[in-house]
Amino acid sequence: MYAIAIHGGAGALPKGGLSPERQREYRQSLSQALTAGQALLERAGNALDAVEAAVTALEDDPLFNAGRGAVLCEDGSVELDAAIMSGSDLRAGAVAGIRYIRNPIRLARRVMEKSPHVFLTGAGAEAFADVNGFERVPNEYFITPLRSQQLQALLRPASTSGPAAVAALDEPPLGTVGAVARDSHGRLAAATSTGGMTGKLRGRIGDSPVIGAGTYADDRSCAVSTTGHGEWFLRTVQAYDIAARLNYGGYLLADAVNDAIAHRLTRLGATGGLIAVNRDGEIVMRYNTPAMFRACVRRGEPATIEIE
Amino acid sequence: MYAIAIHGGAGALPKGGLSPERQREYRQSLSQALTAGQALLERAGNALDAVEAAVTALEDDPLFNAGRGAVLCEDGSVELDAAIMSGSDLRAGAVAGIRYIRNPIRLARRVMEKSPHVFLTGAGAEAFADVNGFERVPNEYFITPLRSQQLQALLRPASTSGPAAVAALDEPPLGTVGAVARDSHGRLAAATSTGGMTGKLRGRIGDSPVIGAGTYADDRSCAVSTTGHGEWFLRTVQAYDIAARLNYGGYLLADAVNDAIAHRLTRLGATGGLIAVNRDGEIVMRYNTPAMFRACVRRGEPATIEIE
Repeated sequence: MYAIAIHGGAGALPKGGLSPERQREYRQSLSQALTAGQALLERAGNALDAVEAAVTALEDDPLFNAGRGAVLCEDGSVELDAAIMSGSDLRAGAVAGIRYIRNPIRLARRVMEKSPHVFLTGAGAEAFADVNGFERVPNEYFITPLRSQQLQALLRPASTSGPAAVAALDEPPLGTVGAVARDSHGRLAAATSTGGMTGKLRGRIGDSPVIGAGTYADDRSCAVSTTGHGEWFLRTVQAYDIAARLNYGGYLLADAVNDAIAHRLTRLGATGGLIAVNRDGEIVMRYNTPAMFRACVRRGEPATIEIE
Repeated sequence: MYAIAIHGGAGALPKGGLSPERQREYRQSLSQALTAGQALLERAGNALDAVEAAVTALEDDPLFNAGRGAVLCEDGSVELDAAIMSGSDLRAGAVAGIRYIRNPIRLARRVMEKSPHVFLTGAGAEAFADVNGFERVPNEYFITPLRSQQLQALLRPASTSGPAAVAALDEPPLGTVGAVARDSHGRLAAATSTGGMTGKLRGRIGDSPVIGAGTYADDRSCAVSTTGHGEWFLRTVQAYDIAARLNYGGYLLADAVNDAIAHRLTRLGATGGLIAVNRDGEIVMRYNTPAMFRACVRRGEPATIEIE
């Protein structure tokens, strides 16, 4: 029995919702990413490869806020964060402030496997990438016309200074991507990748690359990837909180996620969502925002792809 | 009833142990930092101010691996990380890769109070510091002859490349600093500050500035600051793990810390320690290394200062 779930971010949709064409595009893209992960699991591949493959596909797709098509920092450049974790041995790799590496999730995995470290940032992470044979791409590779327009819209009301950008940070963007999987050997893995929030300060780190906040996996409990207002997920250590509820509180996965999202986060005024899979291959996907792009499939069952 | 505990790092002592003079220096320094925090609590001050004051004192003291006297990166420069958290409202601030700000813990607190973010790194964090009136100091301010010698010793066996530094990373340095406090109003706070590991890659982030890993506080459960092999504390989300054991598992603080340090971390091959205080003002300090510099005091009780 294998299971895989992916998300393409939680947040608000544009006024009037997405056009039917746009919905088709998102569904098709989610389907392709899900299939990229599922294909590996179908061949008895491991959960780690599956979440990496799914997130790589979403990073490469300009529709999502990760890799190409990521949102822009206040200075108009792109900085990317990603993390991956293996539930069998609690190995983890994370990178933040990546400007020149096409697939941050692949770099995160390399940090996990080829460095004694868990978390590398900025120029240091990219120096590690150079040594490990990653090709550099120009920062412009990641920038799409849509994201430039979004930054312009954000900065327009004020001068070039920060207040408008800061105020707008309360609105979580739709588009962080992530994946969780259980493979046929019972191994769990989680991966998350993001460009952060439109207009963010350079050097700002959200929850996505932080092990325990945005990404966590432990074969004994569950694998989790979150999306939403990253600062809140950092403060609540959200991904590990779900695992701890299972481990120490005897919660069922659905109850743990429900309590965390529908009750605790909502009460705190935080918005977002998460996907999780437990050691039995049960999948739970919850959010308290108007929408969360998501898809999942389990062995022998039809895939589901949902937007709202 | 107030309570405060501080640590100056867990790890191995030099061969033959510390000289009596050196022991006196460390004890005196720990005593001064403890008193800096206690003085505020004695005047019914808040836990947040107390942990900030204690950690600031330790950052300013070149004996410890934080602020002035921090260990050096492989390129011979200093990069500092710090985090602070308020247990009353789960606010948190963290900085990493700081090169020019004298007291990273103060900058972390400013991030918590004056930015919409939790976690800022590198040049972005220092740009925020500039705007918020922090003075810059040259990177050389932090560098002491002892730390230069330690880096030279680490790099000597190999050429200037990384393998020696990498191998030596298994040996945790003594010296990360931290504080936890409960004030007379029942508010909890935690703070941690570090220079990381001798010979680290620039851009490497350990557990200290990561909310949930090295630093966590929640009035409902406990405040925790950790020290040791940061990569392991990141992977086990150690600080939040203690809080979750209390919250969801009904553990007593001493049992939670004992299980986490003496059993789980030791079994995983990880080395380090932590200090914690719960909402009743109970203090627990545990480590599985040869030594942990530590001190604590509770209202109306004598202070204890210990090295081994």
